[in-house]
Amino acid sequence: MQVNMNTTFSRETDLIDSLIAGRQPGRALPREFYSDENVYRADLDRLWRRGWLFAGHSCEIPKAGDYFTLEVDADSLIVIRGEDGVIRGFHNVCRHRGSLVCTAAAGHVNRLICPYHQWAYGLDGRLVACRGMQDDLDKSQLGLKPIAAREVAGMIYTSLAENPSPFEPAQELLSAFAKPQGFRRAKIAKAVDYLVKANWKLVWENNRECFHCNLNHPQYIKANFDHYNADDTTPRIKTEISAAINRSETKWAAAGLAATHKQSGMTVFPDAENNIWFSANRTPLVEGYVSETMNGKQGAPLMGDYIDADVGTLRMRTLPNFWNHSSCDHAVSTRLLPAGPQLTAIRVWWLVDEKAVEGRDYELDKLLPFWQLTSEQDWQICERQQRGVNSSAYVPGPYSIYKEYNVDGFVRWYLKTLDSARH
Amino acid sequence: MQVNMNTTFSRETDLIDSLIAGRQPGRALPREFYSDENVYRADLDRLWRRGWLFAGHSCEIPKAGDYFTLEVDADSLIVIRGEDGVIRGFHNVCRHRGSLVCTAAAGHVNRLICPYHQWAYGLDGRLVACRGMQDDLDKSQLGLKPIAAREVAGMIYTSLAENPSPFEPAQELLSAFAKPQGFRRAKIAKAVDYLVKANWKLVWENNRECFHCNLNHPQYIKANFDHYNADDTTPRIKTEISAAINRSETKWAAAGLAATHKQSGMTVFPDAENNIWFSANRTPLVEGYVSETMNGKQGAPLMGDYIDADVGTLRMRTLPNFWNHSSCDHAVSTRLLPAGPQLTAIRVWWLVDEKAVEGRDYELDKLLPFWQLTSEQDWQICERQQRGVNSSAYVPGPYSIYKEYNVDGFVRWYLKTLDSARH
Amino acid sequence: MQVNMNTTFSRETDLIDSLIAGRQPGRALPREFYSDENVYRADLDRLWRRGWLFAGHSCEIPKAGDYFTLEVDADSLIVIRGEDGVIRGFHNVCRHRGSLVCTAAAGHVNRLICPYHQWAYGLDGRLVACRGMQDDLDKSQLGLKPIAAREVAGMIYTSLAENPSPFEPAQELLSAFAKPQGFRRAKIAKAVDYLVKANWKLVWENNRECFHCNLNHPQYIKANFDHYNADDTTPRIKTEISAAINRSETKWAAAGLAATHKQSGMTVFPDAENNIWFSANRTPLVEGYVSETMNGKQGAPLMGDYIDADVGTLRMRTLPNFWNHSSCDHAVSTRLLPAGPQLTAIRVWWLVDEKAVEGRDYELDKLLPFWQLTSEQDWQICERQQRGVNSSAYVPGPYSIYKEYNVDGFVRWYLKTLDSARH
Repeated sequence: MQVNMNTTFSRETDLIDSLIAGRQPGRALPREFYSDENVYRADLDRLWRRGWLFAGHSCEIPKAGDYFTLEVDADSLIVIRGEDGVIRGFHNVCRHRGSLVCTAAAGHVNRLICPYHQWAYGLDGRLVACRGMQDDLDKSQLGLKPIAAREVAGMIYTSLAENPSPFEPAQELLSAFAKPQGFRRAKIAKAVDYLVKANWKLVWENNRECFHCNLNHPQYIKANFDHYNADDTTPRIKTEISAAINRSETKWAAAGLAATHKQSGMTVFPDAENNIWFSANRTPLVEGYVSETMNGKQGAPLMGDYIDADVGTLRMRTLPNFWNHSSCDHAVSTRLLPAGPQLTAIRVWWLVDEKAVEGRDYELDKLLPFWQLTSEQDWQICERQQRGVNSSAYVPGPYSIYKEYNVDGFVRWYLKTLDSARH
Repeated sequence: MQVNMNTTFSRETDLIDSLIAGRQPGRALPREFYSDENVYRADLDRLWRRGWLFAGHSCEIPKAGDYFTLEVDADSLIVIRGEDGVIRGFHNVCRHRGSLVCTAAAGHVNRLICPYHQWAYGLDGRLVACRGMQDDLDKSQLGLKPIAAREVAGMIYTSLAENPSPFEPAQELLSAFAKPQGFRRAKIAKAVDYLVKANWKLVWENNRECFHCNLNHPQYIKANFDHYNADDTTPRIKTEISAAINRSETKWAAAGLAATHKQSGMTVFPDAENNIWFSANRTPLVEGYVSETMNGKQGAPLMGDYIDADVGTLRMRTLPNFWNHSSCDHAVSTRLLPAGPQLTAIRVWWLVDEKAVEGRDYELDKLLPFWQLTSEQDWQICERQQRGVNSSAYVPGPYSIYKEYNVDGFVRWYLKTLDSARH
Repeated sequence: MQVNMNTTFSRETDLIDSLIAGRQPGRALPREFYSDENVYRADLDRLWRRGWLFAGHSCEIPKAGDYFTLEVDADSLIVIRGEDGVIRGFHNVCRHRGSLVCTAAAGHVNRLICPYHQWAYGLDGRLVACRGMQDDLDKSQLGLKPIAAREVAGMIYTSLAENPSPFEPAQELLSAFAKPQGFRRAKIAKAVDYLVKANWKLVWENNRECFHCNLNHPQYIKANFDHYNADDTTPRIKTEISAAINRSETKWAAAGLAATHKQSGMTVFPDAENNIWFSANRTPLVEGYVSETMNGKQGAPLMGDYIDADVGTLRMRTLPNFWNHSSCDHAVSTRLLPAGPQLTAIRVWWLVDEKAVEGRDYELDKLLPFWQLTSEQDWQICERQQRGVNSSAYVPGPYSIYKEYNVDGFVRWYLKTLDSARH
């Protein structure tokens, strides 16, 4: 096997090297990055199995033994809360004959018991029972394979890497921003799953610019300032933003919140040069909007530490698979998972305060449409782009320096990540 | 990338070379030609992206700004009528980030505007607006990529080749034959799309013989003489054909029409040795039939220049993707497009005179069945053949010299085309 | 083509060699064996196209001209009874242009006539008519390609090998065991087809142990002793088995039946070292059970030579694709066919005496559930295991020496078969 694997491997490495070298600065990526099976495998190997992946929310598994599963391509993972309250992650693969251990999307267990031959694992992954096996089996070597897991302000991250990169810098930033939103005291009002026929990078590139918002997101642009950039922020818009900032700043400071993005346009992210894969900021909404709902009005009880609806909008994003938009009354999390070279599994969650009761304190048909429409508009865009990019006539075009600086940043971050993980 | 691509490329070329060399004269093609991914890519590269492809009818886009789209494997194309009335073709791929520009199958536009960031192209493909981009962008280099387009007597052809082969010889022949049919003054009565699980060459081979007609096409053989060949054309059949010719010839000559195929059996096509990829002929129908309808009777107003229903049947075909059977009152066009090694997208159109009104002048349930049944019988045959050809036990069998001369001609044309386009 | 094919071929051989060498004794197979396209092709080439495959039952084709078809991956096969009463097998591929000849799953014909151009083959496969072909065609060279076929006590086996291994040893054993069950005087009460998303070897490994029975097969374990093994057969269970044997042995001997498996646990099979791919045994059921039905009661008239319901259970299995569980009143056959690296087509048949009449002598809702539930429980297990095995975190775990000796035997048989068929 040695020879073959090495040959295959080295050819794949050569291919990726040459593709990376072939990208022209300031332009979109060549077609292979969005469609080729070899690039997809490199993405899995060098990026998805190395980085920190958003998995879900800690409020989804409040009690010891609560778990959920997720799938990173063919890798099924369990995220579970232990008897000590700590959240852990494991590969969802029995060490006996390889069956999935947890077959449900979520649930509660006392032990993790494989349905095939009932090998039983503790909530900490240790093999605790395997009736019918010979006595000299070394159980200590047969625990569920662990994956790194971290919880930050109610958000759960995992990494499939043996030696993941330090999580602390992200932890520090995200906990500061997320704390007042109260994710740990939240509940899931709704979750919707999508299977989008586009490479995961097209979904991110779409996320990293609001150049497309004007005509594609009629709801979103009513509430936000993102789609105004250096080239088209008129004096009137500047005045509106300043006014919004002025209205909020003193009040926010008193509440321990800060407006960290005070301009039009999107905050700069990612920072490829410094390998910054996480970011958060708080910014005002357009006057008349206190929540990202269709009419801008509050649609659920205040979340977390908020004592006033006027908190603007909190935004967080972490590469390669998470973003969140939070209003005073609800929060919307989006998680991407790769499911094929041209297929991305996306889940969108709506969170509200844990004590809020549907029908009494909020109604889904008021809370969901803003981000459900905006999300689905984006998935449709990405699928149309994938089809065009697949054409033999596709050539990478130029980015707008005013509006697509973050797309370029994402592409540079991606290429650098891929290149630096070269074996 | 150089090395890898060349290696891959050279191995594919070697494979195709050896497969071409391995075909035995007078026999069907080896399995790989009908199933292998490498052969399919060579077909796309050497044949589909080089030849003249039938795209549709000019009557489908009568006004400036009318367009339709089509897909040659992953290549999406736009065919559109310009403000000058000229029909043009473009790759349906935005030069910015590669999105499809036209997302509908057909429509009308003033400009071709990409739905992603609203880059706007004129009907001639020039980039006319791209708000939000830097000023120093050279718009003249960012027009939609053009493809060659020709209109002949109401039929539209396109070529993805940079330097397509001359269209004039086909133009000359087709316009002479098609003119009296009046395609430019026609309208689409109905179009039906099929996704046939068979390699495109199996569909053509099926089309190139009427050896299979006797038991598979009960409707077709009542109206036509194709299924009689050198080995089984009895004196009675010869007399019937002569009688049919005699009945028509003087009248047709007076009307400027000519019976160009006066025998039983099918006209010889293609001519591999002379690389003739287009052909047309007019031939009589069986007595009692003035139209290819179930009962042989006229089912719609006369088309084009015809002043008498007795015009026999006009047949045209162009490789690699078109054939047409026209009666006095309606015409049926068939277009093939490759969609995978074992998948062909087929559209069948029924055309009638532009002034004909459904329900008053014609009824679809009278007009469609003859060719709808015959077509669907053929698709089923092709799918069964594909399954058998996929067997490890398949070996190419001998062609009948009486009945499959055109299948052999097609195969020789195909192999010669593939070989001559060798890089 | 020589060079390419050899290169591809030699790389595949190297890969298989190194995978075989890499398997650790006493452990499950590495992931590639269950998922890789190259391994799957080697399985087809070295094992499925060489061994004896169970095809169906002779009672399905009682009369001359009765046939059924089956598919081994892309190879479609016909099994047909000739005018001489002999059962023969052929590739279901016309020697003319490769179409499937029989398009139905089963039927009756006087001749095998290709639906494309009506080439006609006798029931013995000889080409008897091909109208329209040139006279100098050597028909004797154009018969349907035969495959080996054998009938043993009502069970039909075929082999795609040019020189199949001797069938006699299997014939001898199976006929002795199967004769009293009377398969030749049986009829099909019901057949159910499944498409299971798992490699065929996972299905076999599941079949080769009852370690998983306790919690997965609540119906099965009530009737059988298989799930008790060396490590957990209590004195009480031993006494029960002895009692069951004692009850039956004299009576069975008088009836020409023998209890050939008198212990708890499963009989040892396969025997990798001696390349034994077939096996049969008769063993008692738990007291109170005379048939593998939900309540253990007889559900249909006695089959074959039986004159008493107390005949225990007859079990047969042949690699790579058959097992059968027979009770006094009905028999259940299971046939596996490979349909992809992670896809297995499975048919389960329920047979009863040919004179039994549904509604009068038996009812399907009484006869089917025992094995329908047990089978479907197994398919679900296999699909869950496939998903886990696909994970990048999967590593082959240890087998229980008490309960998985037959799984290990199957794996050793498989590897030896693969290795010995190395080109």
